[in-house]
Amino acid sequence: NNTVVIGRKHVINYCVTHFVCLFSCHKLQESLLSSNSGYSNYRGILNWCVVMLVLSNARLVLENLIKYGILVDPIQIISLFLKDPYSWPALCLIIGMISVHYVSLHLATVYCDLYVICLVCKFWGVFSGCVSVGGVMALGVFTVLFLKLYSYRDVNKWCRESRRAKARTLSRSHSCPSVHKANGTAGYTHVNYPGNLTHRDIYYFIFVPTLCYELNFPRSPRIRKRFLLRRLLEMLFLMQLMIGLIQQWMVPTIQNSMKPFQDMDLSRIVERLLKLAVPNHFIWLIFFYWYFHSSMNFVAELMQFGDREFYRDWWNSETIPYFWSNWNIPVHKWCLRHFYKPMLVKGVNKFTAQLAVFFMSAFFHEYLVSVPLKMFRLWAFLGMMAQIPLAYFVGRFLRGNYGNAAVWMSLIIGQPIAVLMYFHDYYVLRCVL
Amino acid sequence: NNTVVIGRKHVINYCVTHFVCLFSCHKLQESLLSSNSGYSNYRGILNWCVVMLVLSNARLVLENLIKYGILVDPIQIISLFLKDPYSWPALCLIIGMISVHYVSLHLATVYCDLYVICLVCKFWGVFSGCVSVGGVMALGVFTVLFLKLYSYRDVNKWCRESRRAKARTLSRSHSCPSVHKANGTAGYTHVNYPGNLTHRDIYYFIFVPTLCYELNFPRSPRIRKRFLLRRLLEMLFLMQLMIGLIQQWMVPTIQNSMKPFQDMDLSRIVERLLKLAVPNHFIWLIFFYWYFHSSMNFVAELMQFGDREFYRDWWNSETIPYFWSNWNIPVHKWCLRHFYKPMLVKGVNKFTAQLAVFFMSAFFHEYLVSVPLKMFRLWAFLGMMAQIPLAYFVGRFLRGNYGNAAVWMSLIIGQPIAVLMYFHDYYVLRCVL
Repeated sequence: NNTVVIGRKHVINYCVTHFVCLFSCHKLQESLLSSNSGYSNYRGILNWCVVMLVLSNARLVLENLIKYGILVDPIQIISLFLKDPYSWPALCLIIGMISVHYVSLHLATVYCDLYVICLVCKFWGVFSGCVSVGGVMALGVFTVLFLKLYSYRDVNKWCRESRRAKARTLSRSHSCPSVHKANGTAGYTHVNYPGNLTHRDIYYFIFVPTLCYELNFPRSPRIRKRFLLRRLLEMLFLMQLMIGLIQQWMVPTIQNSMKPFQDMDLSRIVERLLKLAVPNHFIWLIFFYWYFHSSMNFVAELMQFGDREFYRDWWNSETIPYFWSNWNIPVHKWCLRHFYKPMLVKGVNKFTAQLAVFFMSAFFHEYLVSVPLKMFRLWAFLGMMAQIPLAYFVGRFLRGNYGNAAVWMSLIIGQPIAVLMYFHDYYVLRCVL
Repeated sequence: NNTVVIGRKHVINYCVTHFVCLFSCHKLQESLLSSNSGYSNYRGILNWCVVMLVLSNARLVLENLIKYGILVDPIQIISLFLKDPYSWPALCLIIGMISVHYVSLHLATVYCDLYVICLVCKFWGVFSGCVSVGGVMALGVFTVLFLKLYSYRDVNKWCRESRRAKARTLSRSHSCPSVHKANGTAGYTHVNYPGNLTHRDIYYFIFVPTLCYELNFPRSPRIRKRFLLRRLLEMLFLMQLMIGLIQQWMVPTIQNSMKPFQDMDLSRIVERLLKLAVPNHFIWLIFFYWYFHSSMNFVAELMQFGDREFYRDWWNSETIPYFWSNWNIPVHKWCLRHFYKPMLVKGVNKFTAQLAVFFMSAFFHEYLVSVPLKMFRLWAFLGMMAQIPLAYFVGRFLRGNYGNAAVWMSLIIGQPIAVLMYFHDYYVLRCVL
């Protein structure tokens, strides 16, 4: 009986001490979101952003499917290539161009400006045809070949000048040794001018994913078969994905935005623009990965080309010039080596040379869009030119993450504006004529 | 003449050396996105997420404005309060409840279970009326008062038991000194039981933003006027924003989703659900900040209540239980102190006690929704119950950021499902009757 009483007392004592410590369940403290709490761990917000983005876009995809059904049609693209009467001349032109290279090699000692002929002949070739996927592709190939040929001519010219200068120095001093650069690639014989003037060398340069000619390219030691296969599968899958997104998402959105454009209904135009911005941006991102990572790495692996720096970390760019000099390294390298630096050597000041590079880039953007569409509207040119005041504004007023956000904003918004402008003009032109 | 020749040679030499170093513009390296490049700086991606979210939602806002025009009407809400014949009885009931507290104080020594009367009377009071904003608010106030009264009764009971136990111990040993807890708040006299049984004390507890009674609350040293003003402005602005978003964004979306629900068109229901999820989630986030940060801090500052921990960092929660025990600290504290721990003391095992807390929470969720809508559909109850298997799944299979993303997902998707269910049933019920 006594033990029971003690037990009960124990229980009561336990309860009392247990609850007495609970009496004070409050203490003096600030809320986490108050500025003077010193709290700053918002790691979860990034996950929130990602979840919100995924869900928002899942809804858009579903809405699109409900509204339009499935519009993806892989056969359409293939038939576009096969049946399009203008893609065959384009192919002929590409083959013709490669023959031009053959001639240019044989005339290499004369260095006649054959590349001007290219520019004219491709212009004529595409302009005489209609708008076609083949035309756009042929024009792209021609532009690449033009830039390559220009680089080939330049480098060979420098080599010739260098040899002459050396010969002259040697004839005076008889002491200067010729310096061979060891380019770090074992297994390949080092080539000197004019030993590089062979068919094998020029065709290797044509197919390698770079625009800058070099006598001795760095070479990768072997072809990694798994790497090659993965890049190939990426290429095929992303190609299909891009075509699917364009057919399913871009085309209906653009078609729907023609009416507000004709009515000049500003708020609806802005709404359409923002609606177009999302698929356009996704397709651009996929295109970037497809072209600059998958395709270029595939070709480079196949050719055992060692330098895989086709892009740098443009996604972190905090200024507009950083973006432009890091997202397309082959073109950036070419501009630096064959356009910007020669201008500096000729005594042009830095700022003017930079502006000139921008102008040339704007010209090629306009050229690649206007010729296949057969409309000189200058929207692409103006879009590129608008980068200059934008770059000034971002560089002057925005730093760090704000600058980065501004670069992203200009990418996401800028492109669909140009796309809508061209499609609007093209649509009006075709309807009126 | 000789100097000119030297000058020309200098220029040529400069050019040659300048360009010779440019000859090798390639080096052996991997692309950044290749897995073996070792690159991992994707800081820009967070900014990309934020920009994409802002732009997507800007489009949604614009689309909504074009489609519906401006639906925001602050007068409507005020008239809803003033003209609603059922919000006046609700106000009377609130005043009545406060009188009940007065009575409960006078009967404090008897501790009769007056709070059961509250629960019944508020149930009857609201159920007899129609759906109204006043009714929902009265029910919320009643629930809070019920929980406070329960805590008040419990703490006073513990105090009485503690005094009796002490008296018994003292009568035997005559040596145990009574321990006064110094609660760290200067300028306020320390109160002991039964000195706390005053009108002033009970009304202070009723208006203070906590559910757990304590004899000596921690007090803040002074009322910061700027802090108070900022919280007040936040309260007013966010209140308007919430009402505006509901009128402009939620109501049309819900109205548009009734038809797919009636047709049982699954893909459209999912699309509507995702469309509703965005405004619902934003309103919930604003509500959280408005209620748990602005309003509670405002009241606490006014009452010089020191403990401002109304929420913890639930946005970083990687498991479902972490979220539930961190987003609403007053209720969590109450559950722990007056429901979970007493159950443990009574010998209930931990898991059963946790389940019981969840059941009670689910009951109150259902109660707060069903009574004003006058429909017992159990959707809120089931929604809360679904947290248990979800918590198991997340805790078992997902870690770190994946767990966090799953918690966000359940928040963003779970709520609109319940909202749509209730509105569907309410709509069908009103249409049929």
